[in-house]
Amino acid sequence: MNTQKIADDLIALCKAGKFDEAGEKYWADDVLSVEPSGEAAAVRGKQAARDKGEWWAGAHDIHSFDVGGPYVNGEQFVVRFTIDQTVKETGNRMTLDEVGLYTVKNGKIAEERFFYVG
Amino acid sequence: MNTQKIADDLIALCKAGKFDEAGEKYWADDVLSVEPSGEAAAVRGKQAARDKGEWWAGAHDIHSFDVGGPYVNGEQFVVRFTIDQTVKETGNRMTLDEVGLYTVKNGKIAEERFFYVG
Repeated sequence: MNTQKIADDLIALCKAGKFDEAGEKYWADDVLSVEPSGEAAAVRGKQAARDKGEWWAGAHDIHSFDVGGPYVNGEQFVVRFTIDQTVKETGNRMTLDEVGLYTVKNGKIAEERFFYVG
Repeated sequence: MNTQKIADDLIALCKAGKFDEAGEKYWADDVLSVEPSGEAAAVRGKQAARDKGEWWAGAHDIHSFDVGGPYVNGEQFVVRFTIDQTVKETGNRMTLDEVGLYTVKNGKIAEERFFYVG
Protein backbone atom coordinates (compact mmCIF):
# COMPACT_ATOMS: atom_id res chain seq x y z
CA MET A 1 0.00 0.00 0.00
CA ASN A 2 1.66 3.20 -1.08
CA THR A 3 1.86 6.54 0.70
CA GLN A 4 -0.86 8.17 -1.41
CA LYS A 5 -3.35 5.40 -0.63
CA ILE A 6 -2.60 5.43 3.08
CA ALA A 7 -2.85 9.24 3.10
CA ASP A 8 -6.18 9.16 1.24
CA ASP A 9 -7.64 6.57 3.60
CA LEU A 10 -6.39 8.35 6.73
CA ILE A 11 -7.94 11.60 5.50
CA ALA A 12 -11.24 9.87 4.73
CA LEU A 13 -11.35 8.44 8.27
CA CYS A 14 -10.49 11.83 9.81
CA LYS A 15 -13.12 13.62 7.69
CA ALA A 16 -15.64 11.14 9.10
CA GLY A 17 -14.47 12.09 12.61
CA LYS A 18 -12.85 8.67 13.09
CA PHE A 19 -9.53 10.00 14.42
CA ASP A 20 -9.07 7.06 16.81
CA GLU A 21 -9.76 4.52 14.09
CA ALA A 22 -7.26 6.22 11.76
CA GLY A 23 -4.59 5.87 14.44
CA GLU A 24 -5.40 2.28 15.28
CA LYS A 25 -5.30 1.33 11.62
CA TYR A 26 -2.05 3.03 10.64
CA TRP A 27 0.19 3.70 13.65
CA ALA A 28 3.26 1.48 13.72
CA ASP A 29 3.70 -0.26 17.10
CA ASP A 30 6.67 1.98 17.87
CA VAL A 31 5.25 5.18 16.28
CA LEU A 32 6.99 8.39 17.33
CA SER A 33 4.48 11.20 17.95
CA VAL A 34 5.93 14.71 18.26
CA GLU A 35 4.31 17.94 19.50
CA PRO A 36 6.19 21.26 19.43
CA SER A 37 6.36 21.48 23.23
CA GLY A 38 4.84 20.36 26.48
CA GLU A 39 5.49 17.62 29.03
CA ALA A 40 5.08 14.88 26.47
CA ALA A 41 6.54 16.65 23.42
CA ALA A 42 7.75 13.38 21.95
CA VAL A 43 6.18 10.08 22.88
CA ARG A 44 6.83 6.65 21.44
CA GLY A 45 4.49 3.73 20.96
CA LYS A 46 0.92 3.12 19.95
CA GLN A 47 -0.36 3.26 23.53
CA ALA A 48 1.28 6.65 24.15
CA ALA A 49 -0.19 8.04 20.91
CA ARG A 50 -3.59 6.64 21.88
CA ASP A 51 -3.32 8.22 25.36
CA LYS A 52 -2.55 11.60 23.80
CA GLY A 53 -5.63 11.38 21.58
CA GLU A 54 -7.80 10.39 24.51
CA TRP A 55 -6.47 13.26 26.63
CA TRP A 56 -7.21 15.73 23.83
CA ALA A 57 -10.72 14.39 23.22
CA GLY A 58 -11.50 14.54 26.93
CA ALA A 59 -10.12 18.06 27.44
CA HIS A 60 -12.02 19.76 24.60
CA ASP A 61 -15.50 20.22 23.24
CA ILE A 62 -15.28 19.99 19.45
CA HIS A 63 -17.80 22.21 17.67
CA SER A 64 -16.67 21.53 14.10
CA PHE A 65 -13.57 20.55 12.20
CA ASP A 66 -12.17 20.52 8.71
CA VAL A 67 -9.51 18.21 7.28
CA GLY A 68 -7.46 19.16 4.20
CA GLY A 69 -5.00 17.44 1.90
CA PRO A 70 -3.28 15.06 1.76
CA TYR A 71 -0.13 16.74 0.43
CA VAL A 72 2.27 13.98 -0.60
CA ASN A 73 6.02 13.69 -1.22
CA GLY A 74 7.65 10.26 -1.33
CA GLU A 75 7.06 8.43 1.96
CA GLN A 76 5.76 11.54 3.69
CA PHE A 77 2.46 13.38 3.62
CA VAL A 78 0.92 16.44 5.28
CA VAL A 79 -2.65 16.86 6.53
CA ARG A 80 -4.29 20.12 7.60
CA PHE A 81 -6.61 20.20 10.60
CA THR A 82 -8.78 23.19 11.43
CA ILE A 83 -10.70 22.61 14.64
CA ASP A 84 -13.23 24.89 16.33
CA GLN A 85 -12.99 23.81 19.95
CA THR A 86 -13.54 24.92 23.54
CA VAL A 87 -11.01 24.06 26.22
CA LYS A 88 -13.23 22.53 28.91
CA GLU A 89 -11.08 23.65 31.82
CA THR A 90 -11.06 27.34 30.89
CA GLY A 91 -14.12 27.70 28.69
CA ASN A 92 -11.94 29.36 26.04
CA ARG A 93 -13.21 28.79 22.52
CA MET A 94 -10.51 28.83 19.84
CA THR A 95 -9.79 27.68 16.33
CA LEU A 96 -6.85 25.30 16.20
CA ASP A 97 -4.96 25.65 12.91
CA GLU A 98 -2.59 22.73 12.62
CA VAL A 99 -0.76 20.47 10.21
CA GLY A 100 0.43 16.92 10.73
CA LEU A 101 3.50 15.57 8.91
CA TYR A 102 3.36 11.77 8.60
CA THR A 103 6.24 9.47 7.67
CA VAL A 104 5.28 6.04 6.33
CA LYS A 105 7.43 2.92 6.62
CA ASN A 106 6.32 -0.58 5.68
CA GLY A 107 2.73 0.56 5.23
CA LYS A 108 2.45 2.09 8.71
CA ILE A 109 2.94 5.55 10.21
CA ALA A 110 6.40 5.46 11.75
CA GLU A 111 6.31 9.11 12.78
CA GLU A 112 3.73 11.88 13.14
CA ARG A 113 4.83 15.44 13.82
CA PHE A 114 2.43 18.29 14.51
CA PHE A 115 2.92 21.96 13.65
CA TYR A 116 0.83 24.91 14.82
CA VAL A 117 0.30 28.52 13.84
CA GLY A 118 1.83 30.41 16.78
CA MET B 1 17.31 34.19 15.01
CA ASN B 2 14.89 31.47 15.94
CA THR B 3 12.69 29.34 13.70
CA GLN B 4 9.50 31.31 14.43
CA LYS B 5 11.13 34.62 13.43
CA ILE B 6 12.61 33.21 10.24
CA ALA B 7 9.27 31.61 9.39
CA ASP B 8 7.38 34.85 10.04
CA ASP B 9 9.78 36.86 7.90
CA LEU B 10 9.79 34.33 5.07
CA ILE B 11 5.98 34.33 5.04
CA ALA B 12 5.87 38.13 5.01
CA LEU B 13 8.21 38.21 1.99
CA CYS B 14 6.17 35.55 0.17
CA LYS B 15 2.88 37.34 0.92
CA ALA B 16 4.45 40.40 -0.72
CA GLY B 17 5.26 38.26 -3.76
CA LYS B 18 8.99 38.42 -3.00
CA PHE B 19 9.62 34.69 -3.40
CA ASP B 20 13.10 35.23 -4.85
CA GLU B 21 14.10 37.58 -2.06
CA ALA B 22 12.89 35.10 0.57
CA GLY B 23 15.14 32.44 -0.95
CA GLU B 24 18.17 34.69 -1.30
CA LYS B 25 17.83 35.79 2.31
CA TYR B 26 17.36 32.39 3.94
CA TRP B 27 18.67 29.56 1.76
CA ALA B 28 21.85 27.99 3.12
CA ASP B 29 24.62 27.79 0.52
CA ASP B 30 24.14 24.01 0.33
CA VAL B 31 20.34 24.01 0.69
CA LEU B 32 18.63 20.77 -0.35
CA SER B 33 15.43 21.43 -2.31
CA VAL B 34 13.11 18.45 -2.82
CA GLU B 35 10.10 18.03 -5.14
CA PRO B 36 8.01 14.83 -5.13
CA SER B 37 9.15 13.85 -8.61
CA GLY B 38 10.55 15.04 -11.90
CA GLU B 39 13.96 15.32 -13.50
CA ALA B 40 15.31 17.47 -10.71
CA ALA B 41 13.39 15.96 -7.78
CA ALA B 42 16.20 16.79 -5.36
CA VAL B 43 18.67 19.55 -6.08
CA ARG B 44 21.39 20.93 -3.86
CA GLY B 45 22.80 24.42 -3.57
CA LYS B 46 21.54 27.97 -3.69
CA GLN B 47 22.08 28.27 -7.45
CA ALA B 48 20.05 25.14 -8.17
CA ALA B 49 17.20 26.36 -5.93
CA ARG B 50 17.34 29.75 -7.67
CA ASP B 51 17.24 28.05 -11.10
CA LYS B 52 14.15 26.10 -10.09
CA GLY B 53 12.37 29.26 -9.01
CA GLU B 54 13.30 31.01 -12.24
CA TRP B 55 12.08 28.06 -14.31
CA TRP B 56 8.75 28.09 -12.46
CA ALA B 57 8.28 31.84 -12.78
CA GLY B 58 9.06 31.68 -16.49
CA ALA B 59 6.78 28.73 -17.22
CA HIS B 60 3.63 30.08 -15.56
CA ASP B 61 1.38 33.10 -15.54
CA ILE B 62 0.43 33.79 -11.93
CA HIS B 63 -3.08 35.22 -11.55
CA SER B 64 -3.20 35.29 -7.76
CA PHE B 65 -1.73 33.51 -4.78
CA ASP B 66 -2.29 33.02 -1.08
CA VAL B 67 0.29 32.13 1.56
CA GLY B 68 -0.72 30.55 4.90
CA GLY B 69 1.01 29.72 8.15
CA PRO B 70 3.69 29.42 9.33
CA TYR B 71 3.09 26.21 11.25
CA VAL B 72 6.09 25.68 13.54
CA ASN B 73 7.63 22.75 15.42
CA GLY B 74 11.20 23.02 16.73
CA GLU B 75 13.59 23.72 13.86
CA GLN B 76 10.98 23.01 11.21
CA PHE B 77 8.06 24.95 9.83
CA VAL B 78 5.36 24.48 7.19
CA VAL B 79 3.97 27.09 4.78
CA ARG B 80 0.85 26.71 2.60
CA PHE B 81 0.85 28.04 -0.93
CA THR B 82 -2.31 28.30 -3.02
CA ILE B 83 -1.53 29.57 -6.50
CA ASP B 84 -3.95 30.29 -9.33
CA GLN B 85 -1.75 29.89 -12.39
CA THR B 86 -1.73 29.12 -16.10
CA VAL B 87 0.89 26.83 -17.58
CA LYS B 88 2.18 28.92 -20.47
CA GLU B 89 3.05 25.96 -22.69
CA THR B 90 -0.40 24.36 -22.55
CA GLY B 91 -2.66 27.24 -21.59
CA ASN B 92 -4.07 25.10 -18.75
CA ARG B 93 -5.25 27.17 -15.83
CA MET B 94 -5.06 25.39 -12.48
CA THR B 95 -4.93 26.03 -8.75
CA LEU B 96 -1.76 24.69 -7.21
CA ASP B 97 -2.39 23.56 -3.63
CA GLU B 98 0.97 22.99 -2.01
CA VAL B 99 2.85 23.00 1.28
CA GLY B 100 6.54 23.59 1.89
CA LEU B 101 8.32 21.97 4.85
CA TYR B 102 11.42 23.98 5.84
CA THR B 103 14.23 22.82 8.11
CA VAL B 104 16.34 25.55 9.72
CA LYS B 105 19.96 25.14 10.77
CA ASN B 106 22.20 27.97 11.98
CA GLY B 107 19.63 30.57 11.00
CA LYS B 108 19.36 29.38 7.38
CA ILE B 109 17.09 27.01 5.46
CA ALA B 110 19.07 23.79 5.19
CA GLU B 111 16.25 21.91 3.49
CA GLU B 112 12.96 22.70 1.75
CA ARG B 113 10.60 19.91 0.78
CA PHE B 114 7.41 20.46 -1.21
CA PHE B 115 4.18 18.46 -0.98
CA TYR B 116 1.21 18.58 -3.35
CA VAL B 117 -2.39 17.49 -3.34
CA GLY B 118 -2.42 14.70 -5.92
